[in-house]
Amino acid sequence: DFLNALHEIIPAFGASTDDLERCRLNGIVECGGRHEHIFKRTMLLAEQVKVSRGSPLVTCLLEGPSGSGKTAMSATVGIGSDFPYVKIVSAETMIGLSESTKCAQIVKVFEDAYRSPLSIIILDDIERLLEYVAIGPRFSNLISQTLLVLLKRLPPKGKKILVIGTTSELNFLDSVGLQDAFSVTYNVPTLKTEDAKKVLEQLNVFAEEDIDSAAEALNDMPIKKIYMVIEMAAQGEEGGGAEAIYSGKEKIKLMHFYDCLQDVIRY
Amino acid sequence: DFLNALHEIIPAFGASTDDLERCRLNGIVECGGRHEHIFKRTMLLAEQVKVSRGSPLVTCLLEGPSGSGKTAMSATVGIGSDFPYVKIVSAETMIGLSESTKCAQIVKVFEDAYRSPLSIIILDDIERLLEYVAIGPRFSNLISQTLLVLLKRLPPKGKKILVIGTTSELNFLDSVGLQDAFSVTYNVPTLKTEDAKKVLEQLNVFAEEDIDSAAEALNDMPIKKIYMVIEMAAQGEEGGGAEAIYSGKEKIKLMHFYDCLQDVIRY
Amino acid sequence: DFLNALHEIIPAFGASTDDLERCRLNGIVECGGRHEHIFKRTMLLAEQVKVSRGSPLVTCLLEGPSGSGKTAMSATVGIGSDFPYVKIVSAETMIGLSESTKCAQIVKVFEDAYRSPLSIIILDDIERLLEYVAIGPRFSNLISQTLLVLLKRLPPKGKKILVIGTTSELNFLDSVGLQDAFSVTYNVPTLKTEDAKKVLEQLNVFAEEDIDSAAEALNDMPIKKIYMVIEMAAQGEEGGGAEAIYSGKEKIKLMHFYDCLQDVIRY
Amino acid sequence: DFLNALHEIIPAFGASTDDLERCRLNGIVECGGRHEHIFKRTMLLAEQVKVSRGSPLVTCLLEGPSGSGKTAMSATVGIGSDFPYVKIVSAETMIGLSESTKCAQIVKVFEDAYRSPLSIIILDDIERLLEYVAIGPRFSNLISQTLLVLLKRLPPKGKKILVIGTTSELNFLDSVGLQDAFSVTYNVPTLKTEDAKKVLEQLNVFAEEDIDSAAEALNDMPIKKIYMVIEMAAQGEEGGGAEAIYSGKEKIKLMHFYDCLQDVIRY
Amino acid sequence: DFLNALHEIIPAFGASTDDLERCRLNGIVECGGRHEHIFKRTMLLAEQVKVSRGSPLVTCLLEGPSGSGKTAMSATVGIGSDFPYVKIVSAETMIGLSESTKCAQIVKVFEDAYRSPLSIIILDDIERLLEYVAIGPRFSNLISQTLLVLLKRLPPKGKKILVIGTTSELNFLDSVGLQDAFSVTYNVPTLKTEDAKKVLEQLNVFAEEDIDSAAEALNDMPIKKIYMVIEMAAQGEEGGGAEAIYSGKEKIKLMHFYDCLQDVIRY
Amino acid sequence: DFLNALHEIIPAFGASTDDLERCRLNGIVECGGRHEHIFKRTMLLAEQVKVSRGSPLVTCLLEGPSGSGKTAMSATVGIGSDFPYVKIVSAETMIGLSESTKCAQIVKVFEDAYRSPLSIIILDDIERLLEYVAIGPRFSNLISQTLLVLLKRLPPKGKKILVIGTTSELNFLDSVGLQDAFSVTYNVPTLKTEDAKKVLEQLNVFAEEDIDSAAEALNDMPIKKIYMVIEMAAQGEEGGGAEAIYSGKEKIKLMHFYDCLQDVIRY
Ligand SMILES: Nc1ncnc2c1ncn2[C@@H]1O[C@H](COP(=O)(O)OP(=O)(O)OP(=O)(O)O)[C@@H](O)[C@H]1O
Ligand SMILES: Nc1ncnc2c1ncn2[C@@H]1O[C@H](COP(=O)(O)OP(=O)(O)OP(=O)(O)O)[C@@H](O)[C@H]1O
Ligand SMILES: Nc1ncnc2c1ncn2[C@@H]1O[C@H](COP(=O)(O)OP(=O)(O)OP(=O)(O)O)[C@@H](O)[C@H]1O
Ligand SMILES: Nc1ncnc2c1ncn2[C@@H]1O[C@H](COP(=O)(O)OP(=O)(O)OP(=O)(O)O)[C@@H](O)[C@H]1O
Ligand SMILES: Nc1ncnc2c1ncn2[C@@H]1O[C@H](COP(=O)(O)OP(=O)(O)OP(=O)(O)O)[C@@H](O)[C@H]1O
Ligand SMILES: Nc1ncnc2c1ncn2[C@@H]1O[C@H](COP(=O)(O)OP(=O)(O)OP(=O)(O)O)[C@@H](O)[C@H]1O
Ligand SMILES: [Mg+2]
Ligand SMILES: [Mg+2]
Ligand SMILES: [Mg+2]
Ligand SMILES: [Mg+2]
Ligand SMILES: [Mg+2]
Ligand SMILES: [Mg+2]
Repeated sequence: DFLNALHEIIPAFGASTDDLERCRLNGIVECGGRHEHIFKRTMLLAEQVKVSRGSPLVTCLLEGPSGSGKTAMSATVGIGSDFPYVKIVSAETMIGLSESTKCAQIVKVFEDAYRSPLSIIILDDIERLLEYVAIGPRFSNLISQTLLVLLKRLPPKGKKILVIGTTSELNFLDSVGLQDAFSVTYNVPTLKTEDAKKVLEQLNVFAEEDIDSAAEALNDMPIKKIYMVIEMAAQGEEGGGAEAIYSGKEKIKLMHFYDCLQDVIRY
Repeated sequence: DFLNALHEIIPAFGASTDDLERCRLNGIVECGGRHEHIFKRTMLLAEQVKVSRGSPLVTCLLEGPSGSGKTAMSATVGIGSDFPYVKIVSAETMIGLSESTKCAQIVKVFEDAYRSPLSIIILDDIERLLEYVAIGPRFSNLISQTLLVLLKRLPPKGKKILVIGTTSELNFLDSVGLQDAFSVTYNVPTLKTEDAKKVLEQLNVFAEEDIDSAAEALNDMPIKKIYMVIEMAAQGEEGGGAEAIYSGKEKIKLMHFYDCLQDVIRY
Repeated sequence: DFLNALHEIIPAFGASTDDLERCRLNGIVECGGRHEHIFKRTMLLAEQVKVSRGSPLVTCLLEGPSGSGKTAMSATVGIGSDFPYVKIVSAETMIGLSESTKCAQIVKVFEDAYRSPLSIIILDDIERLLEYVAIGPRFSNLISQTLLVLLKRLPPKGKKILVIGTTSELNFLDSVGLQDAFSVTYNVPTLKTEDAKKVLEQLNVFAEEDIDSAAEALNDMPIKKIYMVIEMAAQGEEGGGAEAIYSGKEKIKLMHFYDCLQDVIRY
Repeated sequence: DFLNALHEIIPAFGASTDDLERCRLNGIVECGGRHEHIFKRTMLLAEQVKVSRGSPLVTCLLEGPSGSGKTAMSATVGIGSDFPYVKIVSAETMIGLSESTKCAQIVKVFEDAYRSPLSIIILDDIERLLEYVAIGPRFSNLISQTLLVLLKRLPPKGKKILVIGTTSELNFLDSVGLQDAFSVTYNVPTLKTEDAKKVLEQLNVFAEEDIDSAAEALNDMPIKKIYMVIEMAAQGEEGGGAEAIYSGKEKIKLMHFYDCLQDVIRY
Repeated sequence: DFLNALHEIIPAFGASTDDLERCRLNGIVECGGRHEHIFKRTMLLAEQVKVSRGSPLVTCLLEGPSGSGKTAMSATVGIGSDFPYVKIVSAETMIGLSESTKCAQIVKVFEDAYRSPLSIIILDDIERLLEYVAIGPRFSNLISQTLLVLLKRLPPKGKKILVIGTTSELNFLDSVGLQDAFSVTYNVPTLKTEDAKKVLEQLNVFAEEDIDSAAEALNDMPIKKIYMVIEMAAQGEEGGGAEAIYSGKEKIKLMHFYDCLQDVIRY
Repeated sequence: DFLNALHEIIPAFGASTDDLERCRLNGIVECGGRHEHIFKRTMLLAEQVKVSRGSPLVTCLLEGPSGSGKTAMSATVGIGSDFPYVKIVSAETMIGLSESTKCAQIVKVFEDAYRSPLSIIILDDIERLLEYVAIGPRFSNLISQTLLVLLKRLPPKGKKILVIGTTSELNFLDSVGLQDAFSVTYNVPTLKTEDAKKVLEQLNVFAEEDIDSAAEALNDMPIKKIYMVIEMAAQGEEGGGAEAIYSGKEKIKLMHFYDCLQDVIRY
């Protein structure tokens, strides 16, 4: 299964494993069948690229609500593949750069990949790469045109590339034609009560009798936000309670947990 | 409680206490349970950041009508924390600068924070940092993209940051995706009659029998505007009355007070 | 009263009295209770600034139809105060300058004021400073952001400032958030029949029996336009009649006066 | 009357009479009471400026359909006045210049005028000076702001100016606030049948019995277009007939005249 | 008539006859009364300009669907006139130039014309000169303002100019005020069945019994497109048939002709 | 027929056959009558250009859904013609270039063609050349104007050009006037069940009894996407199955094929 698969992978030569590891700061826990399915399929695409003769370029988009685990999943595929070149393209390293400089850096990553027999390029948070904002809407057409061409341009003979994109603004990507530019799109969802329950069991911070209630309250929440609420709740009402919780000496109080949930959910 | 908490705090090393103090020119008076609650919760977030291992970046937004006390509250948290790096980012020090220079200065504040083990960054009046104006609407997308990335980018290993934002344009922040970029949002409200009454009692400028009427007239007014009306009223109809009022020799005349209230309320 | 108050004021040291005087080319005549009230209140604000400790910055907006006397009134407050620094900021001296140069000049006026213990800054015709035009609408956001910050930024310790703004586009100022940036707003109105009558009596250019009819025809007209119509009418139908009228030898013919009124009123 | 008035005027010293004369290439013929009235009134404004003490700046707008005679009328006032400085500001001499250069040239004309005791400035075709186009709409806000300020800015002490503007886009001028910036506005109309008849009688190109029919066909046409149709018709159906018509040997054939009218009228 | 007229004209001195000739690559065939009428009228305008004293500038617009013969007609007038300066202004020679360079080149053509006693300037495809595109819509306002002024500006004393414009976007020209800037507008239409029949008879590529059916199928088609369809059809279904058709050995097969027509007509 | 035709063609001197070959990475298989018809007609246009005297420039647009085979078809015509100059203009070689540089490169291709007696220019993915994005919509008007002129401008005497454009955004091309700028437009469709069946038979990856069901599932899919799904399916559920399929040892499992189809079809 998904978690076992993770243990079998050996860090690929040339991949900046460190950068990829930072994309899953809370590690990878089992969190439901859908996540597992998408991971498996994306790993298959990597294999397809490797063996294919007719399609040296395969592109795949992971979309879903903020915090649902898209970036962590892409990073895990990158780490899990044995491709010599794995690179994440993120707005974080391009703050304040001009459109054309960003554009050049993105092209550079592809040009580098063209020199490796097998490559994975992760275009993380594409809406952020495109400087998208809903008002207007505004975005960099220079970068969007660049991606539209790069997602279609074949690598040189003998080179093969898998491109994984992530986004939480699928509608926007669709309206600029970027969704259609990907061969496949997968929806990474929030967790349902049963998925949340599995996660809580693994984290072991609630009393056994509280787990069901807590999981139910977390229904439809993205995995990343679950981590946030639990950290807030672990502090306790007056602060200072975190150590006792994480060491397992105490459990999170359900009432205080509900309280923290209030703050995090948009009213 | 809130006021007591304030007395226990020792100015943090490295924090520019002077700048923070100017943010609460009229001091901090007790002004109702909601203000107290928000202050306490924000102090807890500071503690959470300190002890957390999984989330080295916590972000919190204080929103509410103009003059409701958001900036003063943030400054008080900054002063009250024992974080070695506390910095307020405000449009006041960036008048007339180009978007990209502003952007660079904001990034600089974060880069500085990345060098301190514990930091608080106050993004004051975010709509002003973004040069927002309702007509159009217009705003700096360069700065908004920068904030969107900075509010998500993790500090280097071992460094931790609490970001506090303030705004009186929540709808705008929402529509550019900035509200969602904060982990938690708190609404800092205007004062209700009973809150206003407490404030008036502390200020002691009305005759005892007038306090209830005055407080009622101030219902739903932000704390900052209350100070303004009282200063206007203290002058008296023909001017020159302020000293007598503040020294306690005379009291503000209710009729004249109502008159001044008229001028200040938007007709 | 208003006119007497004017006689008691001594030109302030440092104020460019000449510039201020040119703002009221037709002098100041008594023109109704509302004008008098606003003048008095604005003088009180000047006093409040002087004695206040808690609010070293007070801001006041005079708004009303074109020609209603806003600029003349502000200038009169500036002349009437005994503040050492009184400065009028007007688009007239910044024709053709770039947005950023205008912006710098405005900031400069505030920086200068920060060096004087007591200052009055008149922001005249704010819509013109902002290069506002209704089509679009268009305006300089650079300047509007600058004003939004300047109207909130506290002067250095020990310095105090009264800012008076004037505008005939209140709705526009409101929609860019500039009205809310002022502590107080006063509406300077057109003249009613009875106010117009007082003005006509002071000017003495109509036969006694015609004054009521003339005043009635002038109902709801701004003071500045009244001066224009009377000058046109004083010429007489064939020209050359002005001297006789102003020397008091002849009176303006009512019929010709109505005729001129037609030309001036928008059809 | 209007035409006699014209004969009494002596070209003013300093006025570039040549430029003004080219503005009325077809001369000035009597063309109805309304034209005469406006001319007289505008001449009176020139006199008012001369004798006034209170209003050293008077501004007047001539508006009306294309070709109705606005420019020719302004030029005639300029020639008819005895003002030492008369200047026409027109887009013709500023083709292809940048907004700011145009702006500077306009300001220059006013600065020059400020050095003459008495000046007339004609702002011809203001919509063209503003580079106005209905689609959008678009126009130069730099120039419109410049005009808005110049139309309000008082000349230095002792100097006096009459500004005459012309436009066929009154609605546009109104929507950018430029109409309100003028003290007076006059509508220069097309010709009615009876006015056209007068003009035809003066031109003497129709047989006596055709004049009424021809004049009726010309009802509601601007004076400039009347000249165009008559020239076309004078050619005759096969060309070559113009000389015979103008020398009076032949008359224009009514049928051919109707034909030409068709071509000129918008279908 | 029209064709005879063409034979009487002698190439004018100074006119770049070569450029003009390339504008009518398929020659000029008789194609209906309307075309003939417009040609005659435009020739009359050239004569009017020559003899006129009052209107040294006459402007005429030829508008109609794409391919209806506007450019060929203008060129024919230019060739047919005996004016020493005939110049065609076209986007073809200005590809990729900046707006202001294009603008300068257009102005240059007029300035050159001002040095010749008699000139014809053809502004070909005005929407293309203006870089017009329906989306937006967008166009060069710099060039449109330039044309608006040039179409009104009188040449120097003693010089005379006829300006012929062509366009297939009359609505656009109208909405930027350019149609009104022309004295006269003529609509150059598509061919009706009877006009098409005349053309087919002159070309002699159909069997006599097929001409009526072919002409009917061509109803409402512009002349230029008729040439295109006939060339396609002349190839024959399997190619290689053109020579036989044009040498008169074979005739176009009606069925294949209908087929080609399908491809050319927008479905 | 279509495939036979392909075998008769000899690579033209000067054509960069390599570039053209890369445009049909999966080769050319027989895929239905419509594709065959369009190919034949476009080849005829090439012949027409060669023999024509009256129309030295013929332009033809291939439009249809993404992946329907437009680029491969154009390349095949280029390879199949015996024209000495065949050039493909594509956004792929112009990533990140400025509008004006792109524009210059496009013009350069035409200028080069003007030096060859017979040329084919393929404008591939015109919406991408124009940097079109549906939001706004936005696109480069500079490039669109350039194409509008180039598609109409005649080559020098004796030179002849066939321009083939491809697009999957016909509506956009229509709204900027580019569709009308082409003489002929052909729609390249998706495959119907029967066409898909033919393709599957040629590929030989399904068991005989599954071909009908598979073909039906592929109804209305573009040829390029069919190749993608088959490659995905060939991997098998657990990966590693591709070699067995392509070597003919195994066949694709229908159920897994349906599964892959799900991922590729937009939900
Ligand atoms: N099975 C899992 N899949 C993905 N993430 C997981 C899983 N288990 C735990 N996580 C943790 O959940 C978090 C997912 O956050 P991540 O940044 O990947 O979300 P995201 O969808 O990219 O959010 P955003 O839309 O804000 O970019 C990470 O901290 C990761 O360590
Ligand atoms: N308990 C309190 N909390 C906050 N402010 C207080 C409190 N008691 C007194 N004040 C005073 O009230 C004023 C609050 O003003 P502040 O500038 O913080 O408002 P704000 O919400 O930031 O307004 P704006 O939206 O205009 O930025 C300060 O002068 C502060 O000294
Ligand atoms: N009591 C008065 N108050 C104001 N102005 C007066 C008064 N009496 C006479 N005036 C004259 O009336 C005129 C008022 O014009 P002013 O320029 O102040 O109007 P405004 O409201 O600023 O107009 P605008 O909106 O065009 O700027 C001045 O010429 C001034 O001398
Ligand atoms: N009484 C008159 N008033 C004005 N123009 C007259 C008169 N008699 C004859 N004309 C002639 O009529 C023409 C009027 O044209 P003019 O350019 O002044 O019109 P316009 O209103 O300025 O047009 P546009 O709106 O196009 O600028 C001139 O040629 C002028 O010589
Ligand atoms: N009587 C005629 N009038 C005009 N053109 C004719 C005539 N007879 C034949 N032609 C031919 O018809 C074609 C007309 O094309 P032309 O380029 O003039 O059309 P157009 O209206 O300018 O098209 P576009 O709107 O595309 O610019 C030319 O090739 C010309 O040689
Ligand atoms: N008969 C055929 N016609 C066209 N393409 C074919 C044919 N047979 C096989 N193919 C293959 O199908 C694919 C068609 O893709 P192509 O890039 O031409 O599509 P397209 O319509 O240009 O797509 P896009 O809209 O994305 O540019 C190519 O890989 C080509 O090798
Ligand atoms: Mg992510
Ligand atoms: Mg604040
Ligand atoms: Mg004013
Ligand atoms: Mg005019
Ligand atoms: Mg043409
Ligand atoms: Mg293609």
